[in-house]
Amino acid sequence: MTNTTRAWHLKSRPQGTPTMDNFELKDAPLGELQDGWIRVENKWLSVDPYMRGRMNDVKSYVPPFQVGEPMQGGAVGKVVESRSPDFAEGETVFHLQGWREGAAGPADQFNKVPPLPVEDFHWLGNLGLTGATAYFGLLRAAQAKAGDTVFVSAAAGAVGSAVVQIAKAMGMNVIGSAGGAEKVAWVRELGADEAIDYKAEPIVPALIKAAPKGIDVYFDNVGGEHLDAAFAAARQNARFAICGMIEGYNGAPPHGFKYIMRVIAARIMMKGFIYTDYLPEMADFYRDMGGWVSSGKVTSRETVRDGIEAMPEAFLDLFRGANMGKMLVRL
Amino acid sequence: MTNTTRAWHLKSRPQGTPTMDNFELKDAPLGELQDGWIRVENKWLSVDPYMRGRMNDVKSYVPPFQVGEPMQGGAVGKVVESRSPDFAEGETVFHLQGWREGAAGPADQFNKVPPLPVEDFHWLGNLGLTGATAYFGLLRAAQAKAGDTVFVSAAAGAVGSAVVQIAKAMGMNVIGSAGGAEKVAWVRELGADEAIDYKAEPIVPALIKAAPKGIDVYFDNVGGEHLDAAFAAARQNARFAICGMIEGYNGAPPHGFKYIMRVIAARIMMKGFIYTDYLPEMADFYRDMGGWVSSGKVTSRETVRDGIEAMPEAFLDLFRGANMGKMLVRL
Repeated sequence: MTNTTRAWHLKSRPQGTPTMDNFELKDAPLGELQDGWIRVENKWLSVDPYMRGRMNDVKSYVPPFQVGEPMQGGAVGKVVESRSPDFAEGETVFHLQGWREGAAGPADQFNKVPPLPVEDFHWLGNLGLTGATAYFGLLRAAQAKAGDTVFVSAAAGAVGSAVVQIAKAMGMNVIGSAGGAEKVAWVRELGADEAIDYKAEPIVPALIKAAPKGIDVYFDNVGGEHLDAAFAAARQNARFAICGMIEGYNGAPPHGFKYIMRVIAARIMMKGFIYTDYLPEMADFYRDMGGWVSSGKVTSRETVRDGIEAMPEAFLDLFRGANMGKMLVRL
Repeated sequence: MTNTTRAWHLKSRPQGTPTMDNFELKDAPLGELQDGWIRVENKWLSVDPYMRGRMNDVKSYVPPFQVGEPMQGGAVGKVVESRSPDFAEGETVFHLQGWREGAAGPADQFNKVPPLPVEDFHWLGNLGLTGATAYFGLLRAAQAKAGDTVFVSAAAGAVGSAVVQIAKAMGMNVIGSAGGAEKVAWVRELGADEAIDYKAEPIVPALIKAAPKGIDVYFDNVGGEHLDAAFAAARQNARFAICGMIEGYNGAPPHGFKYIMRVIAARIMMKGFIYTDYLPEMADFYRDMGGWVSSGKVTSRETVRDGIEAMPEAFLDLFRGANMGKMLVRL
C-alpha cells in the first residue's frame, strides 16, 4: 500500500473570488492502516458552493479549511484495504475525505451506500447532500405542501433541479429561474410550470408575471435580487427556505432589498437550514427520494470533469454558472 | 347632536417623508344616528408608525387611506348618545375612528374596555395595539422563553418599552437599543440588562460587545443596520420577530445587509407578524398584560400632545424619534 495520496491543499485564503493560486496539489500522508481502519480509492468527488465559505477563516456551520492542509468534501470510493470487520474490499462507501485520490481512517468515518440500483455518483447527488438539501429544505424548512406555488432559484443547479422535481412529484406548482436559454429549457423539461431566464429579463417583474397570484414558497439558492423578487411576490404566510446565497459568497457588495418590508405585510417566515439539521429523518429521505430516483420520477444531469487535476477549475466553474445539474469530478 | 366632526383628512400622498401639506383638518359628516348606532366623543387618539404605510396607495395588511377622506386609527372615547341596547351613555369604548374628535357608527364597530383599574389611555398603549404587538411578537412570533437573550430595537418606543418589560417579567436577558442618553437611561430603568445608544456608537460592534455569547431573539422595530447587527450576533436557532422597519418607511435607500448570510449558518428563523394574527389568543394577553399593568410590573411613559390640531405633528415626530414611550393626542 501507498502511505501518501495526491490531495488538493488550501495554499492561501482567497480575497473575493478564488483563483488557482489558492489551491495546491501535492502528496498528503494517509497514515499507517491501523486496526479498525479502512483504505479507500475515491471514484467520484463533489464540488459544492458551500465549500467557498470553508476557504475563509470564519467559524460557520462547518469548520474552515486550514491553510497548508488538504481540503475536504463529499466523495464516493471503493474499499481497497480493510482492517475493520464492518467493511469488505470492493464495497462502495460515501465519506467526507474528498479533494483527494485516496482516503484512510477509522471505519466509522465511512458509510456504506444503501442497496439501491443506481450509479455510484448519485450518492453525491440526488441521493446525497444535494438531494437531502432539496428534500428537507422544501418539505421541512419551508413546509411546502401540495397545491403551493413554489419559486426556486438556480433551478438548473444541483439542488435546484432536485427541488423542481420533488415539488412536481408532490403536486406543487413550480416556477424556476436559471441563467441562459439552455438551462431554462432544461428546467422546463424537469417539469417546471414556468421558467425564467434571469439573464434575459429582470427577475422582479418576471416573477410577478410568472406568478400573478404570488408565491407560497421560495427556495433560495442565490440571495440578492432573487430574494428581493420573492419578497415582492410573496403571498400571505409565504415560507422561505434559505439554503444558499451564492451571489454573496465571493464578496460582492451587499444587496439593498427594496421589498424586504413585505416580510411584515405578507407575514413571511424565513428559515435558514442545513440538511444535517434533519439527519434523524434521513429514513424518510431515502424512502421517498430512493423511490423517485429508482422509478425515474426524479432525474439528474451531471457536469463531469475528469481527473484530480481538474478539481479546482470544476469548483470555480460553479460560480461562473458553468454547470447543468451536479458538478462532479471523476477519478 | 352635531352631524359633523372635525377630522384630519389625507390631502395628498407623501413622497418620502410626509409634511403638513399632506394633511387637512376639516369637517366630516357623522351621519344620522340610526337604530343600533352609537355616538362617541373621542378623548385619546393614537399615532403609530404603521400609519405611514396607509398613506401610500399600496395594498398592505391594512387598506390605504383615501385622498380626500378622513384618516383612521386607534381611539378611546366616551359614549355620548346611544341607540344600541349594548351601550349606555358615559361608557368608555375603544375603536378605530381616530384622527377625529367625534365618531359614530353601528355598535359592533366599538368595543367596551375590559374592567381594569387603569387610566383610559392604556387601551391605546400597553393594553391595546401597542402592548398586544409586543406580547404576541415576543412570545408567539419569536417564541421567546425564559433564559433567552433578547435584543429589542427602538426600546424606548411604545412597543419596544413593552417588549423590554415583558421579557424581564418572563425571566429573559434583555438588550435594548435607543437613540440618545435620555432614552437609554429609561431603557435601563425599565429593567434592560444592557442598553445601547445607537447614535453614540455603531450598532454592530456595540451589540456584539453587549451580547458576547450572541442573541436568541431579536424583536425588530427598525430594520436596516439594527437588523444587520442581529444577523451578526445571532446564536444557533435564533428567532427574529419582524414587527416594523421604520428606517425604510419614508423611502430611505434600501440597506445592504452585510451579515444576512448568517441566516444559514445560524439557522435563523424570521417571521413577520401583525398582532391581529393572534386575535384568538387575546384572552391570554389581557390576563398576563392586565396583571402586569395593574401590579406595576409593566409600566409606561406617554408623550402627550393636546388638541386635535396637534395630531399631524405628533405623527411626524414619531419618525424624528421625539417620543419616549407611547405618543398620544389628548382631546
